[in-house]
Amino acid sequence: MKYWIDNKVPAPPYLAVIFISKKTNHLEGYKEMDELTMELAIKQPGFLGYESCNHDNEGIFISYWKDYESIENWRHHTTHQAAKNMGKKDWYERYVSQIAEVKHSVEFIKNQ
Amino acid sequence: MKYWIDNKVPAPPYLAVIFISKKTNHLEGYKEMDELTMELAIKQPGFLGYESCNHDNEGIFISYWKDYESIENWRHHTTHQAAKNMGKKDWYERYVSQIAEVKHSVEFIKNQ
Repeated sequence: MKYWIDNKVPAPPYLAVIFISKKTNHLEGYKEMDELTMELAIKQPGFLGYESCNHDNEGIFISYWKDYESIENWRHHTTHQAAKNMGKKDWYERYVSQIAEVKHSVEFIKNQ
Repeated sequence: MKYWIDNKVPAPPYLAVIFISKKTNHLEGYKEMDELTMELAIKQPGFLGYESCNHDNEGIFISYWKDYESIENWRHHTTHQAAKNMGKKDWYERYVSQIAEVKHSVEFIKNQ
């Protein structure tokens, strides 16, 4: 799945928050919180878009942001923090969370 | 799926090559080339690891590299170039290819 503000991948530089996860089988409340945080994230100042992939209990979610300040603001959002706490306690067997500065970006769309 | 040299996510800084793709239904030769390029990539100097997710015809593949030189060398590898050409011609409906500098990285493993 993908979602981009203005429906296009912008020109760099911007930031990527890469979240790679493997879930447990204790997923009470996960779906609701996932939907809620997604809804909130895309409304945050500086949010640019996301790309995601989920297969069985594994997933990669990459959100893109204008600057570090936007990421920090979202990181401190009460709901986001609650989600992280529940994620660590119950939902995730493993995750990798990375912040990266996107320097080059190419989007290829067939026959365009 | 994941694969890391020495079985651990290293401390930044390092580089991420993010490849997000949506495949067509014309996938003759795709699987063989995917296996071949994967086998080759992990043997390249400067390769650190990868994280991937595939679901139906959509996928995210992130490879991690020591420096820009390693990425450039792999980018110019004959087999990799052949794969890219075939990908553009037949396999991919859309892809986004990004190079990003990883600045922060946290790995969480439950009960460790």
